[in-house]
Amino acid sequence: MSAGTIHGVGLGPGDPDLMSVRAHRLVRGATHVAYFRKAGRPGRARTIVEGMLRADAVEIAMEYPVTTEIPLDDPAYAECLSGFYAEVSVRLRDIARSGADVVVLCEGDPFFYGSFMHLYTRLRDDVPVRVVPAITGMSAAWTATGIPVTWGDDVLTVLLGTMPQSVLARHMADADAIVVMKVGRNLPKVRDALETAGKLERAWLVECASMAEERAVPLAEAGDRASPYFSIVIVHGQGRRP
Amino acid sequence: MSAGTIHGVGLGPGDPDLMSVRAHRLVRGATHVAYFRKAGRPGRARTIVEGMLRADAVEIAMEYPVTTEIPLDDPAYAECLSGFYAEVSVRLRDIARSGADVVVLCEGDPFFYGSFMHLYTRLRDDVPVRVVPAITGMSAAWTATGIPVTWGDDVLTVLLGTMPQSVLARHMADADAIVVMKVGRNLPKVRDALETAGKLERAWLVECASMAEERAVPLAEAGDRASPYFSIVIVHGQGRRP
Repeated sequence: MSAGTIHGVGLGPGDPDLMSVRAHRLVRGATHVAYFRKAGRPGRARTIVEGMLRADAVEIAMEYPVTTEIPLDDPAYAECLSGFYAEVSVRLRDIARSGADVVVLCEGDPFFYGSFMHLYTRLRDDVPVRVVPAITGMSAAWTATGIPVTWGDDVLTVLLGTMPQSVLARHMADADAIVVMKVGRNLPKVRDALETAGKLERAWLVECASMAEERAVPLAEAGDRASPYFSIVIVHGQGRRP
Repeated sequence: MSAGTIHGVGLGPGDPDLMSVRAHRLVRGATHVAYFRKAGRPGRARTIVEGMLRADAVEIAMEYPVTTEIPLDDPAYAECLSGFYAEVSVRLRDIARSGADVVVLCEGDPFFYGSFMHLYTRLRDDVPVRVVPAITGMSAAWTATGIPVTWGDDVLTVLLGTMPQSVLARHMADADAIVVMKVGRNLPKVRDALETAGKLERAWLVECASMAEERAVPLAEAGDRASPYFSIVIVHGQGRRP
């Protein structure tokens, strides 16, 4: 029997209407569907495809053993996650080796800061793995602001809200257009870094881009309420525009 | 009569199967379809949707008056293009004001270095304009390399091959992951900048990502043949991976 294929399928930013035609077809036809989620939660990727799966689809929920309980830079965090990725990789490999295809649901684009990458590197030498790119959360975010993000020769730099404030500020100062992902509770730090870089006035905060709860506001008007983990800060470029 | 809507519809990197479900629906249903192209060429955006348009769709080919004949930094270039964008904006506005919707076909993502942005800023105060984000050419490019582009806290910087070599090298040295768009005949300059930044060995060259002619090779093995204008150079990040 020949091995099945593991498909890392990017679902895009959240609106099912923004899935690619290929992703839509793979998800609707899947016999085995795997997705990451926090224990006890429905999972964001699974939520996007609600109502699209075959009635007899086998679902494999891959539940993170840890999310924010251990700091990112603690070696125990990497060790814990490494064991988890190894374990779920074995499960998916066994299914593929039994001859079935597996669709792994991925928020955003699988190769762009995605958890699927940790399965990909563990599986690609053993079974066929294919990746379907997708619309990134940042594309949905700058579209939500109603302002183009990069013009002419603008340099775009993508940063993570989890980075140290001084590193954020240095990169912000040297970029024309800026995207900060995973803002959430890092928002005060991101705001301070933007101020240091002299770009706070041009920044926008986008929450839940492309979803029903979408909210895009200038950061200066955003107020102090908590922002979701996946919120994104955008600074638009000012380059050449004939 | 109420005005029609102008839809800036991102088509993605080139494979029609990677269009979003929304883009696919808008293109198939369009009564008026506009697209940029170089005079005398079929146009890349129009090529992507070949076979998808209604038989009675009205096509509006917007032909650039100039592409590479005048240097980008010559004021005559901006002036010539500015007049062109103003003129085609009037054409599209007239159609929308007559009550018809217009679908403007956009390669890649409309708000990410796209020509549509120049129509958007000229039209949005006068008629309803909506934008459909899309999979970027760079997402298709890094997917084609078979290697994830950003891990952990990697900083991604997007550059243009048209930029001065010293500016390219400076940004390359300070980034973890790098995308260089619009490489084409700038390839020797991009290669030299990568060497200065110490990142030439990790660079890949991707041509025609997601299309039948797709080619993804380590830049060191790419040889000296001419590369298409839309080819992309990728340097993958090396960040945290549990």
